[in-house]
Amino acid sequence: MAQSKKLAAGIIRNNREMADGRTIRYYDTADQTRTAPDQRPVEEQPAIGELRLDPLVNEWVAMASHRQGRIFLPPKELCPLCPTTGELLTEVPESDFEVVVFDNRSPSLRPPVGDWALPDLVGPDTDLGTAAGKCEVICFTADHGKSFKDLTPARVRVLLEAWIDRTDELSREPYIQHIAPFENRGEEIGVTLSHPHGQIYAYSYLPPRVEKMLAAANQYMESTGKVLFDEILAREIRDQERIIARNERWIAYVPYASRYPFEIHVAPLNPVADLTGLTDEDRDAFPAIALEVMNRLDGVFGIEMAYIAAWHQAPVRIGRDVLRLHWQITSVRRAPGKLKYLAGSESAMGAFIMDMRPEQSAAQLREVKL
Amino acid sequence: MAQSKKLAAGIIRNNREMADGRTIRYYDTADQTRTAPDQRPVEEQPAIGELRLDPLVNEWVAMASHRQGRIFLPPKELCPLCPTTGELLTEVPESDFEVVVFDNRSPSLRPPVGDWALPDLVGPDTDLGTAAGKCEVICFTADHGKSFKDLTPARVRVLLEAWIDRTDELSREPYIQHIAPFENRGEEIGVTLSHPHGQIYAYSYLPPRVEKMLAAANQYMESTGKVLFDEILAREIRDQERIIARNERWIAYVPYASRYPFEIHVAPLNPVADLTGLTDEDRDAFPAIALEVMNRLDGVFGIEMAYIAAWHQAPVRIGRDVLRLHWQITSVRRAPGKLKYLAGSESAMGAFIMDMRPEQSAAQLREVKL
Repeated sequence: MAQSKKLAAGIIRNNREMADGRTIRYYDTADQTRTAPDQRPVEEQPAIGELRLDPLVNEWVAMASHRQGRIFLPPKELCPLCPTTGELLTEVPESDFEVVVFDNRSPSLRPPVGDWALPDLVGPDTDLGTAAGKCEVICFTADHGKSFKDLTPARVRVLLEAWIDRTDELSREPYIQHIAPFENRGEEIGVTLSHPHGQIYAYSYLPPRVEKMLAAANQYMESTGKVLFDEILAREIRDQERIIARNERWIAYVPYASRYPFEIHVAPLNPVADLTGLTDEDRDAFPAIALEVMNRLDGVFGIEMAYIAAWHQAPVRIGRDVLRLHWQITSVRRAPGKLKYLAGSESAMGAFIMDMRPEQSAAQLREVKL
Repeated sequence: MAQSKKLAAGIIRNNREMADGRTIRYYDTADQTRTAPDQRPVEEQPAIGELRLDPLVNEWVAMASHRQGRIFLPPKELCPLCPTTGELLTEVPESDFEVVVFDNRSPSLRPPVGDWALPDLVGPDTDLGTAAGKCEVICFTADHGKSFKDLTPARVRVLLEAWIDRTDELSREPYIQHIAPFENRGEEIGVTLSHPHGQIYAYSYLPPRVEKMLAAANQYMESTGKVLFDEILAREIRDQERIIARNERWIAYVPYASRYPFEIHVAPLNPVADLTGLTDEDRDAFPAIALEVMNRLDGVFGIEMAYIAAWHQAPVRIGRDVLRLHWQITSVRRAPGKLKYLAGSESAMGAFIMDMRPEQSAAQLREVKL
């Protein structure tokens, strides 16, 4: 593990070991030294969870029962994602930071010990026992009270480089099949720490939605010889009416068949399989559209919107010619004081009912004065 | 449409037309006449919604934008599901009832006008425009303050017969492919009317989760010659530790790979494709296990649990030899004051993380003193 590494755009990564053996990575724009030691007592790591096959639908479910006792919405003075200042020893030993990524203290998925392979899906007698993978936490800023949308463009650029670096490194682990950086925001969707941060889940199996995207893309390639996502983007550009922002390298739109009152997809105009494929020009043009989209979202009702913002990438080893990078932002907020819930049709049947036309939602997002 | 029909167990169905042309069906244990007219002014029916293909995953999404204005948690004296007494003219013209089923006033899916066929799924240029199907509301009792678990066994028997009758009739409609009776309970999951009731969704397409269950069952049949669900049930019976209730005709268990803190599947020991296949003995033995399961669920924390209770049936026209009827109850409540939320991993990736071992949840349900 390199202690210090130069990334693109003059960004430097410094790795440090935490007291319990986990790694913390500092991503900085200046060549800071990051040497503050983690002074906390060593605590025992939770055991690796189980991965169980749900045979009814041939999908893996990770069991992480050690997560029941997680800390819930601590006040700022007890926030474990703030820098260490004064008495409180947090997850970040330094007294300030730009962007940091550290291994999750209560991970749903953990690196496997020894040889590890996923069995074929074979029905109700499949026992596996090991939820292999890796979960990391990414803090966007040391400032507890900020949101993604308040970050400077320069900071979003560092954040993007950190996501790229993590995708690059995690892709090299032989047990990892898929990497998903995402941010959950808002108590309405169960966020337990309000400090601006995201997570990176690296799965040892294809997540069911990715598997389904891959199947659709493969089927489309076989029947038309074209890449599905490129055609989807072409239709959005042709239709125009659901586009909410664009610049020379990126486009943001409410998809034709969105599932949430507010759903936005952000994609590079020159398609790539994953974050590591973005050119320097793509990377430099991302902060502007990302900040515009997030400000439009919070502007619709003038309140902080609960959302999930997730990067969809091609899996690490397969489907790289047919799947495309895009950033999906979904909000369950349909009006001030009203949320969309996933009830019988969505949850039990998987059949989504949308209460709002995507064109209406796109118009509301476009009308926001920035 | 038969005005009056004798069903099993001495239950009688009486159909009446509502003021706006919708149908209400009274299910009664005595031979009541149900003649009270709907005295409300005729109001315009909302137009049929759109069905849009989400090409990323090849799934249909129904657009029902007219539903935004639905009434939200009205007090008892304004409840549209109570019987009509005094001034308030409700959805049910009679002054009392046992079980009623009526066409939903704000349906997500509506019967199509004229010829209607689902196109093959073909990618981003698929336009359809018509969310065909049918949505009905089923009231379990005239008593606004009751819950499913407070019903008498005799009333649950009527309710079951109503579900069976609706499955039977809706199966005859050529545009209907799948029928899902379900109940949503609890403000935590967005229930807008607290009167004890459920819904019946009849889809003109296979809901995505049903499609996935069908694919898994077909694959299992091809590779083993066995019915997947029967083998799942056999494993649950062999493992024993997740079974929470059983009688001579039914069994209830927390599935091996459950996805929610409390998830219970209830299945007949003699497998059938759908509700209409249940024998008289199965039907008569259902109320006892249904009430036991619901009382165990509310007993775990001594509070009313939010839940979704959905009947999984074989589709109307396909997969009838490989899919089996079962009743799935899921609750997002993981502790008093704590809910499980579907965030980044579950919502964006479809990858479920369970915070609790199913065996633990089964033990808690078994330990409830009834």
